[in-house]
Amino acid sequence: MHFKIAFIGFGTVGQGLTEILLEKKDMLVEKYDFHYKIVAISDIMKGAVYDENGLDVKKILDLVKTGKKLDRYPNGVKGMDSTATIKETNADTIVEVTFTDVKTGEPALTHIKAALDAGKNVVSTNKGPVVKQAVELLDMAAKNNVHYGFEGVVLAGTPALNLARYTLAGNKITGFKGILNGTTNYILTRMEEGMSYDDALKKAQDLGYAEADPTGDVEGFDALGKVVILSNVVLGKNLSWKDVERQGITEITREDVEKAKAEGKRWKLIGSAEVQSDDSVKAKVWPEKLSLSDPLAGVCDAINALTYYTDELGPVTIIGPGAGRRETGFSLLIDLLEINRKSTEKTVIKKVA
Amino acid sequence: MHFKIAFIGFGTVGQGLTEILLEKKDMLVEKYDFHYKIVAISDIMKGAVYDENGLDVKKILDLVKTGKKLDRYPNGVKGMDSTATIKETNADTIVEVTFTDVKTGEPALTHIKAALDAGKNVVSTNKGPVVKQAVELLDMAAKNNVHYGFEGVVLAGTPALNLARYTLAGNKITGFKGILNGTTNYILTRMEEGMSYDDALKKAQDLGYAEADPTGDVEGFDALGKVVILSNVVLGKNLSWKDVERQGITEITREDVEKAKAEGKRWKLIGSAEVQSDDSVKAKVWPEKLSLSDPLAGVCDAINALTYYTDELGPVTIIGPGAGRRETGFSLLIDLLEINRKSTEKTVIKKVA
Repeated sequence: MHFKIAFIGFGTVGQGLTEILLEKKDMLVEKYDFHYKIVAISDIMKGAVYDENGLDVKKILDLVKTGKKLDRYPNGVKGMDSTATIKETNADTIVEVTFTDVKTGEPALTHIKAALDAGKNVVSTNKGPVVKQAVELLDMAAKNNVHYGFEGVVLAGTPALNLARYTLAGNKITGFKGILNGTTNYILTRMEEGMSYDDALKKAQDLGYAEADPTGDVEGFDALGKVVILSNVVLGKNLSWKDVERQGITEITREDVEKAKAEGKRWKLIGSAEVQSDDSVKAKVWPEKLSLSDPLAGVCDAINALTYYTDELGPVTIIGPGAGRRETGFSLLIDLLEINRKSTEKTVIKKVA
Repeated sequence: MHFKIAFIGFGTVGQGLTEILLEKKDMLVEKYDFHYKIVAISDIMKGAVYDENGLDVKKILDLVKTGKKLDRYPNGVKGMDSTATIKETNADTIVEVTFTDVKTGEPALTHIKAALDAGKNVVSTNKGPVVKQAVELLDMAAKNNVHYGFEGVVLAGTPALNLARYTLAGNKITGFKGILNGTTNYILTRMEEGMSYDDALKKAQDLGYAEADPTGDVEGFDALGKVVILSNVVLGKNLSWKDVERQGITEITREDVEKAKAEGKRWKLIGSAEVQSDDSVKAKVWPEKLSLSDPLAGVCDAINALTYYTDELGPVTIIGPGAGRRETGFSLLIDLLEINRKSTEKTVIKKVA
């Protein structure tokens, strides 16, 4: 496929994807017949630029990395806002990576709807819209014969959603259990090595894992959003925030961690959901003491992991990074490659027919 | 797609797939537009039956489970051998699950070539042909515009190969490391609980994990075959048996296991390969003492696990069953669903065009 891509938002994740696209340009053509031009970028802080023939990606990255506005780019149309960029450019695929309120899903939700409505593919790492309206947005994409990809909203570029959709297809997935938040797992790992909760949190903040206000991570809200997403997208349910029980890690002490260690166990913040016999789902985020023979127990530092419970294979677990500039940027390439694969298979047949 | 399937071989794995196809018939139609008839079965011990309109799957399973020959099936053509079943029936897809010598790859290799040559899809759990000629057979399938699927040869139905091919696409995979043999992992787990090697082996034999002559498992030959397959299929190399260093678990004593435990470590039989700076590959099967923070260390009993080393995501690990009647049978459904997905996407476009 020959993609014409527009970025709505151009922060670290968008730049991460752009670097990957630039570095892997030849490989993508050779291995996947994947071609692209980035035709537009619109960012509320960095400005906007549009060239229907494609922007010089290297120049764009140089501008942004030296803190300059996109208006300094030598050619193209400047100043288009996100709506105009979605609707009025020749882009066929929108990379939606704005800074978005995870509770309301805005402004990403509006952007995604506008793009799907205009018959454009969307790939996005924004959790909010998926938490709020995954089912509706996927329906909307299907009706418009385009693709809405959001692999990165759970476990970043570790392919948790693709694993369920493609490689575990044919199984009935009856539940899941995972370490869905890297920051809390980092803190618990440090506590097991002897640090206090406060020191471990401080270190996570120094490393950029935890924000100044760490509530979203340590009280389990981030993991909760992912439990909602997995319940709705993988288990086919229709949960919202309030349907999930939640407890964070703030009440776990060094003594609790030591005691668990003595028992050959480890505390982990677990997000889980289980389909019940009446087809409802029981979902929660909760600290659990895992035995060392549980595959999730060995998952340390900021790494994430997810176990799916399947009817044919029993538990199947995937472990990988859950955050990071390149790792999350890469999740968008997974989505783009999925669009490309469908399109390429179509193209082959058109030639044969 | 409307599959017309022929089974070459009808042992536990073939029966496992047949049970899954029977139980999931409606789900497969509804969810994947996957339709099938089993038109032929040819097994060297159980006999052969062919009906171009499709066999009654339940009747077939009843016959086989009560130890009766397929000649007792009420209708159809009896007595066709495997070659005739591949070439002269109306089957479009061959499930190759014969009892095959893993060293020579025969008779599976001959069957697979005949089927691909006749323009039929092949799905198979036989390791031998993949160890010997994966690259040639995949080329042959591509030339004939058909599919050769063998997801089950590594980690049974745990989607190790599909994970690399689809969901990790876009990464450069530079190596892998895995627990690729369930029997040895079962023995090591029991030894860690206090059993001697001999008692643990005996128990593995009682449970049907290990054969009467356990050499293939405990000396690392089974894992070695999988290292060759992964090196050639995932890393794109061209290794054969002799290119892989090998040591089994027979020299590991209870004392070694205890000592590791005291160090907070665990012995595992690890199969690994790593692409070197000169693009060659260093591959081996070897017992390793893993730290408990290694995701592979927590993998106990007969479970398998595989870590891929990737350029964008770092290590990504999948953990799941590596054997079993249904679990291996299910791997064939993964391959069939892949054929179906390609075909369905083609069909949709034909309608649109």
